[in-house]
Amino acid sequence: MRKLAHLEIPRPSPEELETLPAHPITVVLDNIRSIYNVGSIFRTSDAARIEKLWLTGYTGTPAHRGIHKTALGAQDTVPWESTGNPKEVIEQFRKKGYTIAALEITDTPMFPAQLQPAHFPLCLIIGNEVSGVQAELVEMADLALEIPQFGAKQSLNVSVAFGIGIFDIVRRYRALFHADELPPLPQPLDTLPSS
Amino acid sequence: MRKLAHLEIPRPSPEELETLPAHPITVVLDNIRSIYNVGSIFRTSDAARIEKLWLTGYTGTPAHRGIHKTALGAQDTVPWESTGNPKEVIEQFRKKGYTIAALEITDTPMFPAQLQPAHFPLCLIIGNEVSGVQAELVEMADLALEIPQFGAKQSLNVSVAFGIGIFDIVRRYRALFHADELPPLPQPLDTLPSS
Repeated sequence: MRKLAHLEIPRPSPEELETLPAHPITVVLDNIRSIYNVGSIFRTSDAARIEKLWLTGYTGTPAHRGIHKTALGAQDTVPWESTGNPKEVIEQFRKKGYTIAALEITDTPMFPAQLQPAHFPLCLIIGNEVSGVQAELVEMADLALEIPQFGAKQSLNVSVAFGIGIFDIVRRYRALFHADELPPLPQPLDTLPSS
Repeated sequence: MRKLAHLEIPRPSPEELETLPAHPITVVLDNIRSIYNVGSIFRTSDAARIEKLWLTGYTGTPAHRGIHKTALGAQDTVPWESTGNPKEVIEQFRKKGYTIAALEITDTPMFPAQLQPAHFPLCLIIGNEVSGVQAELVEMADLALEIPQFGAKQSLNVSVAFGIGIFDIVRRYRALFHADELPPLPQPLDTLPSS
């Protein structure tokens, strides 16, 4: 068994990558305080190949110099848009037929492994490091996804929780749909209407 | 659907926690440069309920004040030991019958979902943020576990990669072994909504 050197690791070229479909998951990052968490989430989003990151509230953007240390270039490979109001983004995706899911601990917990085909495409809301997803956004959601935890703390770092959660959702999606029978990709929401 | 307040989230008491079994996974954290990554990995290890963290090489320990910001108390709930030489730790676990696994990209990739019952108990080696697991430790391993990645970068933050990997391994362990031999989930599965 031999460790691969950096340049030996197979990666799609930028041209190949553009022809590959994304998993039908879009993510709203609301009120993330630390630009390092934003950068790490960009890097994880590249690896999970989601559709797009929506940066809402006071979440920092790739315009912030500090992001480069943790995003390591993923800010250029993951589609993203910064917009102040998370409610408008969520409403637009609801109208497009997305299931709205908060990654949050609620009175009706559900694990990613319980997602059904009709739950895709899916819009996942991630909230603040300390206070989590805003209560009014949780109320807008169709369901709340939770990571099964077995310890004393019930508290994960937000970029770690996002990593575990998004890879769980991607795994579930790929288990539900055969890779060669991927459902047609939903029309991407490139920009928000100005209304 | 209502978000739970911090004090409403079910957590085992310290007394209960001591009576609960851990998942049979021990982790060697070798040459982790950032104390923030170490702290985050402590927090994730609490949530995944592993046996123990072994801090080797120049990996910082909970004696470092900076850990408190990211471990948030998990340094007191996760058993750990600091020892310079990772090879001694790995050899000790090999003699105890543990499978030695590196979280690393190699020429013989294997995903956590492919683990078999005989692979447990398992000793997982995590390496440096930039250079990964030392080549000489990869050579000592029985197998290398890899996270399936779909993007352009093939590079996750080490504490995010650990989170995705360890939860994948725990999920696989729980799927392979009978539920009544397992650490319990905070909420029983039969009270969860089906979709």
